[in-house]
Amino acid sequence: MAEEKGCERLGTIMVVSGPSGAGKSTICKKLREMVPELRFSVSCTTRNPRPGEEHGVDYYFLTREEFETRIARNEFIEYARVFDNYYGTLYSEVADRVNAGEDVFLDIDVQGAMQIKQRAAEDELLRKCAEFVFIAPPSYEELEKRLRGRGTETEDVVIKRLGQAASEMANWPKYDYLIINECSDAGARRMYEIMQAFHCSCKRIRKLEF
Amino acid sequence: MAEEKGCERLGTIMVVSGPSGAGKSTICKKLREMVPELRFSVSCTTRNPRPGEEHGVDYYFLTREEFETRIARNEFIEYARVFDNYYGTLYSEVADRVNAGEDVFLDIDVQGAMQIKQRAAEDELLRKCAEFVFIAPPSYEELEKRLRGRGTETEDVVIKRLGQAASEMANWPKYDYLIINECSDAGARRMYEIMQAFHCSCKRIRKLEF
Repeated sequence: MAEEKGCERLGTIMVVSGPSGAGKSTICKKLREMVPELRFSVSCTTRNPRPGEEHGVDYYFLTREEFETRIARNEFIEYARVFDNYYGTLYSEVADRVNAGEDVFLDIDVQGAMQIKQRAAEDELLRKCAEFVFIAPPSYEELEKRLRGRGTETEDVVIKRLGQAASEMANWPKYDYLIINECSDAGARRMYEIMQAFHCSCKRIRKLEF
Repeated sequence: MAEEKGCERLGTIMVVSGPSGAGKSTICKKLREMVPELRFSVSCTTRNPRPGEEHGVDYYFLTREEFETRIARNEFIEYARVFDNYYGTLYSEVADRVNAGEDVFLDIDVQGAMQIKQRAAEDELLRKCAEFVFIAPPSYEELEKRLRGRGTETEDVVIKRLGQAASEMANWPKYDYLIINECSDAGARRMYEIMQAFHCSCKRIRKLEF
Protein backbone atom coordinates (compact mmCIF):
# COMPACT_ATOMS: atom_id res chain seq x y z
CA MET A 1 0.00 0.00 0.00
CA ALA A 2 2.95 2.30 -0.62
CA GLU A 3 1.99 5.75 -1.84
CA GLU A 4 3.51 6.95 -5.05
CA LYS A 5 5.24 10.30 -4.71
CA GLY A 6 2.84 13.17 -5.29
CA CYS A 7 -0.25 10.92 -5.27
CA GLU A 8 -2.70 10.93 -2.37
CA ARG A 9 -5.25 8.17 -2.32
CA LEU A 10 -8.15 6.91 -0.26
CA GLY A 11 -7.89 3.27 0.76
CA THR A 12 -10.27 0.55 -0.40
CA ILE A 13 -12.99 -1.09 1.67
CA MET A 14 -12.89 -4.68 0.44
CA VAL A 15 -16.31 -6.14 1.21
CA VAL A 16 -15.91 -9.88 0.76
CA SER A 17 -18.67 -12.50 0.95
CA GLY A 18 -19.14 -16.08 -0.11
CA PRO A 19 -20.88 -19.27 0.97
CA SER A 20 -19.42 -21.57 3.58
CA GLY A 21 -16.95 -23.90 1.84
CA ALA A 22 -16.04 -21.39 -0.88
CA GLY A 23 -12.63 -21.00 0.75
CA LYS A 24 -12.95 -17.44 1.99
CA SER A 25 -11.01 -17.94 5.24
CA THR A 26 -8.12 -19.70 3.50
CA ILE A 27 -7.89 -16.90 0.93
CA CYS A 28 -7.90 -14.32 3.76
CA LYS A 29 -5.17 -16.21 5.60
CA LYS A 30 -2.96 -16.37 2.52
CA LEU A 31 -3.65 -12.73 1.73
CA ARG A 32 -2.52 -11.75 5.24
CA GLU A 33 0.79 -13.50 4.52
CA MET A 34 1.15 -11.73 1.14
CA VAL A 35 0.16 -8.30 2.48
CA PRO A 36 1.15 -8.16 6.17
CA GLU A 37 0.08 -4.51 6.48
CA LEU A 38 -3.50 -5.27 5.37
CA ARG A 39 -6.04 -4.38 8.06
CA PHE A 40 -8.96 -6.64 8.74
CA SER A 41 -11.90 -4.72 10.14
CA VAL A 42 -12.69 -5.35 13.81
CA SER A 43 -16.42 -5.84 14.43
CA CYS A 44 -18.49 -4.98 17.48
CA THR A 45 -20.47 -7.58 19.36
CA THR A 46 -22.57 -7.89 22.49
CA ARG A 47 -21.65 -11.52 23.08
CA ASN A 48 -19.24 -12.35 25.88
CA PRO A 49 -15.53 -12.62 25.05
CA ARG A 50 -14.28 -16.18 24.81
CA PRO A 51 -11.05 -17.16 26.59
CA GLY A 52 -8.11 -15.45 24.88
CA GLU A 53 -10.23 -12.95 22.91
CA GLU A 54 -9.10 -9.35 23.25
CA HIS A 55 -11.17 -6.17 23.10
CA GLY A 56 -10.12 -4.16 20.04
CA VAL A 57 -8.35 -7.11 18.44
CA ASP A 58 -10.91 -9.88 17.97
CA TYR A 59 -13.97 -7.70 18.60
CA TYR A 60 -15.03 -4.53 20.28
CA PHE A 61 -17.09 -5.99 23.13
CA LEU A 62 -20.02 -3.68 23.85
CA THR A 63 -22.93 -3.90 26.24
CA ARG A 64 -26.34 -4.25 24.72
CA GLU A 65 -27.14 -0.70 25.75
CA GLU A 66 -23.99 0.70 24.13
CA PHE A 67 -24.75 -1.23 20.95
CA GLU A 68 -28.34 -0.02 20.76
CA THR A 69 -27.29 3.59 21.38
CA ARG A 70 -24.89 3.32 18.45
CA ILE A 71 -27.60 1.79 16.25
CA ALA A 72 -29.84 4.74 17.12
CA ARG A 73 -27.02 7.14 16.16
CA ASN A 74 -26.62 5.37 12.79
CA GLU A 75 -23.00 4.56 13.64
CA PHE A 76 -22.96 1.11 12.03
CA ILE A 77 -22.45 0.58 8.29
CA GLU A 78 -23.98 -2.85 8.85
CA TYR A 79 -25.26 -4.84 11.80
CA ALA A 80 -27.36 -7.88 12.54
CA ARG A 81 -28.97 -9.53 15.49
CA VAL A 82 -28.14 -13.23 15.69
CA PHE A 83 -30.28 -14.91 18.33
CA ASP A 84 -29.65 -12.82 21.46
CA ASN A 85 -26.56 -10.95 20.33
CA TYR A 86 -25.72 -8.07 18.04
CA TYR A 87 -22.81 -7.98 15.59
CA GLY A 88 -21.85 -4.93 13.55
CA THR A 89 -19.18 -2.79 11.86
CA LEU A 90 -18.70 0.84 12.86
CA TYR A 91 -18.55 3.51 10.16
CA SER A 92 -15.64 5.16 12.03
CA GLU A 93 -13.69 1.87 12.01
CA VAL A 94 -13.51 1.86 8.21
CA ALA A 95 -13.69 5.62 7.49
CA ASP A 96 -10.65 6.51 9.60
CA ARG A 97 -8.56 3.90 7.84
CA VAL A 98 -9.49 4.65 4.23
CA ASN A 99 -9.06 8.37 4.94
CA ALA A 100 -5.51 7.50 6.03
CA GLY A 101 -5.00 5.68 2.70
CA GLU A 102 -5.17 2.19 4.21
CA ASP A 103 -7.17 -0.71 2.80
CA VAL A 104 -9.69 -2.39 5.07
CA PHE A 105 -10.88 -5.93 4.60
CA LEU A 106 -14.43 -6.88 5.66
CA ASP A 107 -15.31 -10.57 5.71
CA ILE A 108 -19.08 -10.28 5.87
CA ASP A 109 -22.31 -12.05 4.88
CA VAL A 110 -24.52 -11.01 1.96
CA GLN A 111 -27.04 -9.19 4.17
CA GLY A 112 -24.28 -7.07 5.73
CA ALA A 113 -22.73 -6.35 2.33
CA MET A 114 -26.08 -5.18 0.98
CA GLN A 115 -26.53 -2.83 3.98
CA ILE A 116 -23.17 -1.27 3.08
CA LYS A 117 -24.16 -1.02 -0.59
CA GLN A 118 -27.39 0.73 0.36
CA ARG A 119 -25.59 3.19 2.62
CA ALA A 120 -22.97 3.81 -0.11
CA ALA A 121 -25.74 5.17 -2.34
CA GLU A 122 -25.99 8.21 -0.06
CA ASP A 123 -22.47 8.41 1.37
CA GLU A 124 -19.66 9.69 -0.84
CA LEU A 125 -16.78 8.09 1.08
CA LEU A 126 -18.40 4.66 1.02
CA ARG A 127 -19.38 5.08 -2.62
CA LYS A 128 -15.78 5.82 -3.57
CA CYS A 129 -14.12 3.25 -1.33
CA ALA A 130 -16.36 0.19 -1.04
CA GLU A 131 -15.74 -2.61 -3.55
CA PHE A 132 -17.78 -5.79 -3.43
CA VAL A 133 -16.11 -9.16 -4.01
CA PHE A 134 -17.88 -12.51 -4.02
CA ILE A 135 -15.93 -15.75 -3.55
CA ALA A 136 -17.54 -18.84 -5.06
CA PRO A 137 -16.62 -22.52 -5.07
CA PRO A 138 -15.96 -23.82 -8.61
CA SER A 139 -18.99 -26.14 -8.56
CA TYR A 140 -21.63 -27.70 -6.39
CA GLU A 141 -19.82 -31.05 -6.60
CA GLU A 142 -16.54 -29.52 -5.43
CA LEU A 143 -18.31 -27.73 -2.58
CA GLU A 144 -19.89 -31.01 -1.48
CA LYS A 145 -16.47 -32.65 -1.54
CA ARG A 146 -14.99 -29.83 0.56
CA LEU A 147 -17.75 -29.85 3.16
CA ARG A 148 -17.63 -33.63 3.50
CA GLY A 149 -13.83 -33.59 3.50
CA ARG A 150 -13.76 -31.56 6.69
CA GLY A 151 -15.10 -34.66 8.42
CA THR A 152 -16.34 -32.53 11.30
CA GLU A 153 -19.95 -32.16 10.22
CA THR A 154 -22.82 -34.64 10.45
CA GLU A 155 -24.68 -35.60 7.27
CA ASP A 156 -27.61 -33.37 8.30
CA VAL A 157 -25.32 -30.36 8.69
CA VAL A 158 -23.61 -31.04 5.34
CA ILE A 159 -26.98 -31.16 3.57
CA LYS A 160 -28.13 -27.97 5.30
CA ARG A 161 -24.88 -26.16 4.38
CA LEU A 162 -25.14 -27.28 0.75
CA GLY A 163 -28.67 -25.95 0.52
CA GLN A 164 -27.63 -22.64 2.08
CA ALA A 165 -24.63 -22.37 -0.25
CA ALA A 166 -26.78 -22.97 -3.33
CA SER A 167 -29.17 -20.19 -2.34
CA GLU A 168 -26.31 -17.85 -1.33
CA MET A 169 -24.69 -18.38 -4.74
CA ALA A 170 -27.65 -16.59 -6.33
CA ASN A 171 -26.30 -13.32 -4.86
CA TRP A 172 -23.11 -13.08 -6.93
CA PRO A 173 -24.62 -10.63 -9.48
CA LYS A 174 -25.07 -8.08 -6.67
CA TYR A 175 -21.27 -7.88 -6.37
CA ASP A 176 -18.67 -6.13 -8.55
CA TYR A 177 -16.12 -8.95 -8.70
CA LEU A 178 -16.39 -12.73 -8.62
CA ILE A 179 -13.50 -15.01 -7.72
CA ILE A 180 -14.13 -18.62 -8.66
CA ASN A 181 -11.94 -20.33 -6.13
CA GLU A 182 -10.56 -23.43 -7.83
CA CYS A 183 -7.60 -23.56 -5.45
CA SER A 184 -6.71 -21.23 -2.61
CA ASP A 185 -3.31 -20.19 -3.98
CA ALA A 186 -4.83 -19.01 -7.25
CA GLY A 187 -7.78 -17.50 -5.35
CA ALA A 188 -5.50 -15.50 -3.04
CA ARG A 189 -3.40 -14.36 -6.00
CA ARG A 190 -6.53 -13.18 -7.78
CA MET A 191 -7.66 -11.29 -4.68
CA TYR A 192 -4.21 -9.69 -4.48
CA GLU A 193 -4.37 -8.64 -8.14
CA ILE A 194 -7.82 -7.13 -7.60
CA MET A 195 -6.46 -5.15 -4.63
CA GLN A 196 -3.54 -3.92 -6.73
CA ALA A 197 -5.95 -2.82 -9.48
CA PHE A 198 -8.00 -0.95 -6.84
CA HIS A 199 -4.86 1.03 -5.99
CA CYS A 200 -4.95 2.41 -9.55
CA SER A 201 -8.62 3.41 -9.37
CA CYS A 202 -8.96 7.09 -10.35
CA LYS A 203 -12.05 7.64 -8.20
CA ARG A 204 -10.00 7.20 -5.01
CA ILE A 205 -7.22 9.64 -5.98
CA ARG A 206 -7.55 12.78 -3.88
CA LYS A 207 -4.55 14.68 -5.14
CA LEU A 208 -2.06 14.13 -7.93
CA GLU A 209 0.90 16.40 -8.40
CA PHE A 210 2.56 16.57 -11.75
CA MET B 1 -7.55 -15.55 -20.68
CA ALA B 2 -8.49 -19.13 -19.83
CA GLU B 3 -12.18 -19.63 -19.12
CA GLU B 4 -13.15 -21.19 -15.84
CA LYS B 5 -15.38 -24.22 -16.27
CA GLY B 6 -19.04 -23.21 -16.35
CA CYS B 7 -18.29 -19.50 -16.65
CA GLU B 8 -18.85 -17.59 -19.89
CA ARG B 9 -17.41 -14.13 -20.06
CA LEU B 10 -17.14 -11.18 -22.42
CA GLY B 11 -13.59 -9.95 -23.01
CA THR B 12 -12.32 -6.53 -21.96
CA ILE B 13 -11.64 -3.61 -24.28
CA MET B 14 -8.57 -2.02 -22.69
CA VAL B 15 -8.55 1.60 -23.85
CA VAL B 16 -5.09 2.90 -22.96
CA SER B 17 -3.86 6.48 -23.31
CA GLY B 18 -1.00 8.55 -21.98
CA PRO B 19 1.32 11.37 -22.99
CA SER B 20 4.41 10.77 -25.09
CA GLY B 21 7.21 9.74 -22.75
CA ALA B 22 4.90 8.12 -20.19
CA GLY B 23 6.23 4.73 -21.28
CA LYS B 24 3.09 3.36 -22.92
CA SER B 25 4.86 1.51 -25.74
CA THR B 26 7.35 -0.16 -23.40
CA ILE B 27 4.51 -1.31 -21.12
CA CYS B 28 2.66 -2.69 -24.16
CA LYS B 29 5.77 -4.52 -25.34
CA LYS B 30 6.32 -6.12 -21.93
CA LEU B 31 2.65 -6.98 -21.64
CA ARG B 32 2.80 -8.78 -25.00
CA GLU B 33 5.60 -10.93 -23.58
CA MET B 34 3.64 -11.66 -20.40
CA VAL B 35 0.35 -12.38 -22.22
CA PRO B 36 1.24 -13.70 -25.71
CA GLU B 37 -2.42 -14.35 -26.55
CA LEU B 38 -3.40 -10.70 -25.97
CA ARG B 39 -4.82 -9.08 -29.09
CA PHE B 40 -3.87 -5.57 -30.02
CA SER B 41 -6.56 -3.90 -32.05
CA VAL B 42 -5.75 -3.28 -35.73
CA SER B 43 -6.75 0.22 -36.89
CA CYS B 44 -7.90 1.39 -40.30
CA THR B 45 -6.07 4.09 -42.21
CA THR B 46 -6.17 5.78 -45.58
CA ARG B 47 -2.44 6.44 -45.64
CA ASN B 48 -0.25 4.36 -47.92
CA PRO B 49 1.39 1.24 -46.50
CA ARG B 50 5.08 1.65 -45.70
CA PRO B 51 7.55 -1.01 -46.82
CA GLY B 52 6.95 -4.19 -44.86
CA GLU B 53 3.52 -3.18 -43.51
CA GLU B 54 0.80 -5.76 -44.02
CA HIS B 55 -2.93 -5.24 -44.52
CA GLY B 56 -4.78 -6.74 -41.54
CA VAL B 57 -1.66 -6.90 -39.41
CA ASP B 58 -0.29 -3.37 -39.08
CA TYR B 59 -3.40 -1.62 -40.38
CA TYR B 60 -6.41 -2.20 -42.54
CA PHE B 61 -5.51 0.00 -45.51
CA LEU B 62 -8.67 1.56 -46.92
CA THR B 63 -9.27 4.03 -49.71
CA ARG B 64 -10.62 7.37 -48.71
CA GLU B 65 -13.97 6.48 -50.24
CA GLU B 66 -14.20 3.21 -48.28
CA PHE B 67 -13.29 5.04 -45.08
CA GLU B 68 -15.88 7.77 -45.59
CA THR B 69 -18.59 5.21 -46.40
CA ARG B 70 -17.81 3.49 -43.11
CA ILE B 71 -17.91 6.78 -41.24
CA ALA B 72 -21.34 7.43 -42.74
CA ARG B 73 -22.49 3.98 -41.59
CA ASN B 74 -21.28 4.71 -38.04
CA GLU B 75 -18.92 1.72 -38.21
CA PHE B 76 -16.07 3.33 -36.26
CA ILE B 77 -15.97 3.49 -32.48
CA GLU B 78 -13.43 6.27 -32.92
CA TYR B 79 -11.71 7.96 -35.80
CA ALA B 80 -9.71 11.08 -36.56
CA ARG B 81 -8.43 12.95 -39.54
CA VAL B 82 -4.74 13.76 -39.24
CA PHE B 83 -3.71 16.14 -42.04
CA ASP B 84 -4.83 14.36 -45.20
CA ASN B 85 -5.40 10.91 -43.78
CA TYR B 86 -8.01 9.14 -41.69
CA TYR B 87 -7.28 6.75 -38.83
CA GLY B 88 -9.94 4.78 -36.98
CA THR B 89 -11.02 1.64 -35.12
CA LEU B 90 -13.94 -0.46 -36.37
CA TYR B 91 -16.71 -1.44 -33.98
CA SER B 92 -16.69 -4.94 -35.52
CA GLU B 93 -12.93 -5.29 -34.85
CA VAL B 94 -13.45 -5.06 -31.09
CA ALA B 95 -17.02 -6.44 -30.79
CA ASP B 96 -16.23 -9.78 -32.47
CA ARG B 97 -13.33 -10.35 -30.13
CA VAL B 98 -14.93 -9.46 -26.81
CA ASN B 99 -17.98 -11.51 -27.81
CA ALA B 100 -15.58 -14.44 -28.22
CA GLY B 101 -14.27 -13.78 -24.69
CA GLU B 102 -10.96 -12.29 -25.85
CA ASP B 103 -9.41 -9.10 -24.48
CA VAL B 104 -8.57 -6.35 -26.96
CA PHE B 105 -5.95 -3.72 -26.32
CA LEU B 106 -6.40 -0.22 -27.83
CA ASP B 107 -3.44 2.14 -27.65
CA ILE B 108 -5.22 5.39 -28.44
CA ASP B 109 -5.14 9.14 -27.80
CA VAL B 110 -7.44 10.97 -25.39
CA GLN B 111 -9.76 12.23 -28.16
CA GLY B 112 -10.26 8.68 -29.45
CA ALA B 113 -10.82 7.32 -25.95
CA MET B 114 -13.47 9.97 -25.28
CA GLN B 115 -15.28 9.07 -28.52
CA ILE B 116 -15.45 5.47 -27.28
CA LYS B 117 -16.66 6.61 -23.86
CA GLN B 118 -19.41 8.65 -25.48
CA ARG B 119 -20.53 5.76 -27.66
CA ALA B 120 -20.43 3.42 -24.63
CA ALA B 121 -23.15 5.54 -23.02
CA GLU B 122 -25.62 4.24 -25.61
CA ASP B 123 -24.12 0.84 -26.47
CA GLU B 124 -24.46 -2.00 -23.98
CA LEU B 125 -21.54 -4.08 -25.23
CA LEU B 126 -19.13 -1.13 -25.09
CA ARG B 127 -20.50 -0.08 -21.70
CA LYS B 128 -19.82 -3.54 -20.28
CA CYS B 129 -16.48 -4.15 -21.95
CA ALA B 130 -14.61 -0.85 -22.28
CA GLU B 131 -12.24 0.05 -19.44
CA PHE B 132 -10.19 3.24 -19.56
CA VAL B 133 -6.60 3.25 -18.37
CA PHE B 134 -4.30 6.28 -18.31
CA ILE B 135 -0.53 5.88 -18.13
CA ALA B 136 1.34 8.79 -16.59
CA PRO B 137 5.01 9.56 -16.06
CA PRO B 138 5.89 9.88 -12.34
CA SER B 139 6.72 13.59 -12.64
CA TYR B 140 7.39 16.41 -15.03
CA GLU B 141 11.11 16.23 -14.20
CA GLU B 142 11.27 12.52 -14.97
CA LEU B 143 9.38 13.05 -18.24
CA GLU B 144 11.85 15.75 -19.24
CA LYS B 145 14.72 13.38 -18.47
CA ARG B 146 13.14 10.64 -20.58
CA LEU B 147 12.43 12.87 -23.57
CA ARG B 148 15.93 14.36 -23.52
CA GLY B 149 17.45 10.93 -22.89
CA ARG B 150 16.14 9.65 -26.22
CA GLY B 151 18.63 11.99 -27.82
CA THR B 152 16.68 11.90 -31.07
CA GLU B 153 14.71 15.11 -30.63
CA THR B 154 15.79 18.70 -31.06
CA GLU B 155 15.38 21.12 -28.15
CA ASP B 156 12.34 22.66 -29.87
CA VAL B 157 10.65 19.30 -30.17
CA VAL B 158 11.43 18.40 -26.53
CA ILE B 159 9.88 21.66 -25.34
CA LYS B 160 6.82 21.15 -27.53
CA ARG B 161 6.40 17.55 -26.29
CA LEU B 162 6.71 18.64 -22.66
CA GLY B 163 4.03 21.26 -23.14
CA GLN B 164 1.74 18.73 -24.83
CA ALA B 165 2.35 16.17 -22.08
CA ALA B 166 1.52 18.67 -19.34
CA SER B 167 -1.79 19.53 -20.98
CA GLU B 168 -2.58 15.85 -21.75
CA MET B 169 -1.97 14.97 -18.09
CA ALA B 170 -5.05 17.02 -17.18
CA ASN B 171 -7.18 14.27 -18.74
CA TRP B 172 -6.42 11.51 -16.22
CA PRO B 173 -9.64 12.06 -14.21
CA LYS B 174 -11.68 11.07 -17.30
CA TYR B 175 -10.25 7.56 -17.01
CA ASP B 176 -11.09 4.69 -14.63
CA TYR B 177 -7.53 3.65 -13.79
CA LEU B 178 -4.24 5.50 -13.53
CA ILE B 179 -0.87 3.80 -13.73
CA ILE B 180 1.96 6.02 -12.53
CA ASN B 181 4.80 4.52 -14.48
CA GLU B 182 7.89 4.77 -12.27
CA CYS B 183 9.62 1.94 -14.13
CA SER B 184 8.33 -0.13 -17.02
CA ASP B 185 8.58 -3.50 -15.24
CA ALA B 186 6.37 -2.30 -12.38
CA GLY B 187 4.10 -0.51 -14.87
CA ALA B 188 3.62 -3.66 -16.97
CA ARG B 189 2.98 -5.72 -13.86
CA ARG B 190 0.35 -3.23 -12.71
CA MET B 191 -1.31 -3.35 -16.14
CA TYR B 192 -1.28 -7.16 -15.95
CA GLU B 193 -2.88 -7.08 -12.49
CA ILE B 194 -5.57 -4.69 -13.73
CA MET B 195 -6.32 -7.07 -16.62
CA GLN B 196 -6.56 -10.00 -14.22
CA ALA B 197 -8.97 -8.03 -12.02
CA PHE B 198 -11.07 -7.26 -15.12
CA HIS B 199 -11.42 -11.02 -15.67
CA CYS B 200 -13.26 -11.17 -12.33
CA SER B 201 -15.64 -8.33 -13.19
CA CYS B 202 -19.24 -9.51 -12.65
CA LYS B 203 -20.67 -7.21 -15.32
CA ARG B 204 -18.93 -9.18 -18.09
CA ILE B 205 -20.11 -12.61 -16.93
CA ARG B 206 -22.73 -13.88 -19.36
CA LYS B 207 -23.40 -17.25 -17.84
CA LEU B 208 -22.34 -18.97 -14.65
CA GLU B 209 -23.23 -22.55 -13.95
CA PHE B 210 -23.26 -23.80 -10.40
